[in-house]
Amino acid sequence: MLQLSERKEFAVMTCQEAGKVAAEYFANRDALLVDQKGAQDWVSEADRNVETFIRDKIRDAWPEDGVFGEEHGASKGTSGFDWVIDPIDGTTNFVNGIPAWTIVLAGVSNAQTQIGVIHDPNVDESYVAVRGGGATLNNAPMRVASGVALEEGTVAVGYSNRIEARHVVPIIADLIEHGAMFHRNASGALSLAYVAAGRLLGYVEEHMNAWDCLAGQLMIAEAGGRIEDQDADAMIRNGGRVIAGTPDVFDTLREIAERAWKT
Amino acid sequence: MLQLSERKEFAVMTCQEAGKVAAEYFANRDALLVDQKGAQDWVSEADRNVETFIRDKIRDAWPEDGVFGEEHGASKGTSGFDWVIDPIDGTTNFVNGIPAWTIVLAGVSNAQTQIGVIHDPNVDESYVAVRGGGATLNNAPMRVASGVALEEGTVAVGYSNRIEARHVVPIIADLIEHGAMFHRNASGALSLAYVAAGRLLGYVEEHMNAWDCLAGQLMIAEAGGRIEDQDADAMIRNGGRVIAGTPDVFDTLREIAERAWKT
Repeated sequence: MLQLSERKEFAVMTCQEAGKVAAEYFANRDALLVDQKGAQDWVSEADRNVETFIRDKIRDAWPEDGVFGEEHGASKGTSGFDWVIDPIDGTTNFVNGIPAWTIVLAGVSNAQTQIGVIHDPNVDESYVAVRGGGATLNNAPMRVASGVALEEGTVAVGYSNRIEARHVVPIIADLIEHGAMFHRNASGALSLAYVAAGRLLGYVEEHMNAWDCLAGQLMIAEAGGRIEDQDADAMIRNGGRVIAGTPDVFDTLREIAERAWKT
Repeated sequence: MLQLSERKEFAVMTCQEAGKVAAEYFANRDALLVDQKGAQDWVSEADRNVETFIRDKIRDAWPEDGVFGEEHGASKGTSGFDWVIDPIDGTTNFVNGIPAWTIVLAGVSNAQTQIGVIHDPNVDESYVAVRGGGATLNNAPMRVASGVALEEGTVAVGYSNRIEARHVVPIIADLIEHGAMFHRNASGALSLAYVAAGRLLGYVEEHMNAWDCLAGQLMIAEAGGRIEDQDADAMIRNGGRVIAGTPDVFDTLREIAERAWKT
């Protein structure tokens, strides 16, 4: 048995508690130790310690589950259920003081994301989804936007130096050509949550890691949006592309993205 | 006498009170009436009523001052001091539920911005500047970033359908070429405040209206950053281009912007 309901409650509580730990670091970020992992890729002691906090909670509550985290790697489990942690999504915002970062926890079994939680401690919003069980924002049902065309809405984009960063440029050009506005707020998970909540029409990024995207993708699907069918285990191993959006715009976003990524 | 200190205190109080009024509309935005002013240009009853709230406060406290607001136009004064109001900067975010919008109030005399206040009610941050008097964030001194190169930082961009929206594309391409990350959060004033607070390296937009930019530009200058020398009265009449950044990156941003806008 997956005990999805219990695991979901656990995940929400854990993200909210981890959010308090992270917010404490954020309020005192002048003292924060920050390291560079690569070009424009930062990590702080807050990322590491918040991940440890979440891993400890998982070990106590679900000792047989596997854990994959952005900062501390993989520990295999025996239950067939794996947790995927992004302790702080939007680290660049976090270390610079921009209040747009989230705590992200996804639960995976049978190569499918079963649970997704994205918690935004800055404005105290918890986005939650369970496969087949719908999606909620602070416990209220959450739906993607409906009946809004690209030229009336906004699409978020992401990019990183893991891929050719310049590939994002034709996507932006194409969105503008379609009359859409674009966003980039440097927290991919938060942007995906906004899509699920009907605040943005879609999200496109050439390569995301599993901890950035699995929770948000499930949420969008459960909120009535469209995502691509991907093997969650393969995403954990390699990451992958992310195209997500409302039924009104998804096909166009996929065309725009594929045209850009082919170049 | 400009009574700058009294006017500053008034502006901060007024923005904070207006922020409470706006936050009430934001929390109940399902009931919000929203109109379209143009392509991707929205206005809600919240914008209109928050501006009226601020105008009433100004009439009570400074009855001889002029007022220019985004939603209700101009009323001339006799004191030589004018207020420039953006009741909600980031209306698209506001009406869609994204908690990235601000209340903006600038005070102008002698064709110069004398006071700038940007208040973010979502996370309760008040950015304040007085010409010659420095800049503060929640009463603590505020400085732009120092010693951070483009390839280690983020620059925000803005655009609208008032100009050729596609002109933003080469700016983004050029920023990526320089190794910089880019942001677009759809609240120009909030992005300018982030530059003043050292959270972003700079901001570039081909055309902003006075109510979007005067407060933020003063703030950046007073926080040690660089802006262009512009006549505030001309900005009130026509708006204008905005290039602002830390001393480390300003010249490069101006080159990038001018190259893009020439096309």
